[in-house]
Amino acid sequence: MVKPEPNSIQLADLPLRPELVDAVPYGAPQLDVPVRLNVNENPYPPSEAVRKDMAKAVAKAAKSLNRYPDREATALREDLARYIGFGVSSGQIWPANGSNEVMTHILQAFGGPERTLLTFTPTYSMYPEYARNTHTAYVTRPRNASWGLTTSEILSAIEEVKPNIILLTTPNNPTGTTIPVAVIDEVCARTDAIVVVDEAYQEFTDAPEDSCIALLPKYGRLIVVRTLSKAFALAGGRLGYAVAAPAVVDALRTVRLPYHLSEVSQVVARVALAHAPEMLARVDELRETRANLEDWLQMHGLDVVSSQSNFVLFGRFADRHAVFQALLDRGVLIREVGPSGYLRVCAGTPRQTDAFRTALLDVLPTAHRLVPEEE
Amino acid sequence: MVKPEPNSIQLADLPLRPELVDAVPYGAPQLDVPVRLNVNENPYPPSEAVRKDMAKAVAKAAKSLNRYPDREATALREDLARYIGFGVSSGQIWPANGSNEVMTHILQAFGGPERTLLTFTPTYSMYPEYARNTHTAYVTRPRNASWGLTTSEILSAIEEVKPNIILLTTPNNPTGTTIPVAVIDEVCARTDAIVVVDEAYQEFTDAPEDSCIALLPKYGRLIVVRTLSKAFALAGGRLGYAVAAPAVVDALRTVRLPYHLSEVSQVVARVALAHAPEMLARVDELRETRANLEDWLQMHGLDVVSSQSNFVLFGRFADRHAVFQALLDRGVLIREVGPSGYLRVCAGTPRQTDAFRTALLDVLPTAHRLVPEEE
Repeated sequence: MVKPEPNSIQLADLPLRPELVDAVPYGAPQLDVPVRLNVNENPYPPSEAVRKDMAKAVAKAAKSLNRYPDREATALREDLARYIGFGVSSGQIWPANGSNEVMTHILQAFGGPERTLLTFTPTYSMYPEYARNTHTAYVTRPRNASWGLTTSEILSAIEEVKPNIILLTTPNNPTGTTIPVAVIDEVCARTDAIVVVDEAYQEFTDAPEDSCIALLPKYGRLIVVRTLSKAFALAGGRLGYAVAAPAVVDALRTVRLPYHLSEVSQVVARVALAHAPEMLARVDELRETRANLEDWLQMHGLDVVSSQSNFVLFGRFADRHAVFQALLDRGVLIREVGPSGYLRVCAGTPRQTDAFRTALLDVLPTAHRLVPEEE
Repeated sequence: MVKPEPNSIQLADLPLRPELVDAVPYGAPQLDVPVRLNVNENPYPPSEAVRKDMAKAVAKAAKSLNRYPDREATALREDLARYIGFGVSSGQIWPANGSNEVMTHILQAFGGPERTLLTFTPTYSMYPEYARNTHTAYVTRPRNASWGLTTSEILSAIEEVKPNIILLTTPNNPTGTTIPVAVIDEVCARTDAIVVVDEAYQEFTDAPEDSCIALLPKYGRLIVVRTLSKAFALAGGRLGYAVAAPAVVDALRTVRLPYHLSEVSQVVARVALAHAPEMLARVDELRETRANLEDWLQMHGLDVVSSQSNFVLFGRFADRHAVFQALLDRGVLIREVGPSGYLRVCAGTPRQTDAFRTALLDVLPTAHRLVPEEE
């Protein structure tokens, strides 16, 4: 038996699963740059009051950290149900370590080998990773020219693909475009598949209450996924959740590993929820920042995708990487993602957004913009 | 299309994966009982000094909780490497939300469809769940009469099963028995499979430094899994980790979802590690408690499996459930697990261990004990 030298064993020497060979760990660059507007984070850290409450809650929870956490996260689920409204009960809430883990639970329960997930591109770049990790076939169809989706576009893709799970993202990342609740209503009425609606950025829309959660009483196979990462400025706390029928939550409880959510994660998230009014006031401000940023970009002759989120897709550049790099050289990190020629920037604090504008004004004169004839 | 009433949709109405139908969410009962000695937790909560440091660390981390956590958990991995010793580097450490998630990452990278995990029963009841969730075939062979394993027993099982992954648990749960490092050394030398050694209870053995981590310089396909749940009294904090070659860690980084470990989990674990001497002093005490408990059980004529962990398997009872229930009626929760006729109890504080002894003395006279002839 020939073995490579252990201290120098390479990834290629390991019996990795075939589909993982040459895969690289996913993730946007984590660079230490003055202005980071690249991963749609909320630019406002928790206030001093929130931080104090978090410290207090952790000091209290620490008294029993030697014990396993409440496997059912009962108190947190009650708080989430109260925040969500729409008459949902805690038995309809499924929290996990970020919507990443929520989505993994959904695919473990309803996807997996011999099953297919259908979604519509361009969309969130993590989705194929969830599918790969759970051995679910990942099939995509393109969004329409305005990066939206109509009922008939979705239904004909379903007809063609016959998916087990349909994943609809609204507002969509990276386009910021929405799918009307009425469209999803009609889709749910006409399929037996599991319909997952990713509403990670719902709080940033002009009408946050216009959510697919309203459809839950009608459809037992509908799952709405949300997160505290964005509106609640808790990306570092890792707390996503699903809202669905109690039977769906029971299915997710079957595949979760016990104690998936630490006691500390549970209490920190509860503090964030207890400060919802303060957190959501920031969301109102960021919504306005994003709207102003759209106007400003358009004023400078850029092609802007009208967004209902905390980020904007703009372009189009013959060499988007050159523009990305020129901004980075000026201390502003944005994201090179989405349809060809576009860049994505998220709404920051006034100072951060100003820095982005200043840097872009500096870069624009030498950036080669695409006009339709050049396509 | 006939649909069940959504509000009353039942698990059976959902398109659950076939292998999950009739599965129940895993987990020991979480009962509110005065004396809980059922899930091998450390009975000592973090001290006031530790709790204060945790609160301080979280207050500081909260200042940037709006940002995603360090995806690579660099500082925590450095602290873990320092604690582990054996000259391991932070690049050899892979932390996740409990050893549950570490094991899932390992099976996602090296297991999965068409691949087989071999382990030896009786052993930790979570293992089949990891395999099921990752679609890895789960094959077991029995341990020998003394609940141990010899080199030739392991090798002939490997010969027969041809596994992709071999999972060896030492000390084993629920038996508390160990596999000598020399045995695992020889197994590693004679297989090309991934060898995972679960050392969750290693700190409780008589010679904690006698760890398979010492074999890592020799074997690139060896992975040692540990946890802060037990020795570091951090079950509620959910922090497990693997120690392996850097290439193995790279493989695990490929399947992990980004930001799997919250910033709060990272800083709380770092505080626990910073207090290692205090935490490990408690381990010394618990080791003694367990040894005394073994003696006491034997003195009362019970069949005791000699343990190198913080728990003891004892019996054997014609109706172990009756004994379990009689103890529970007296406010003492232990675990009905392991080979037929046995019960498992873990080392508690002096007060808790006394309560267990008192309750058992009360129950024993009416408990029907099995003697070999009755088997």
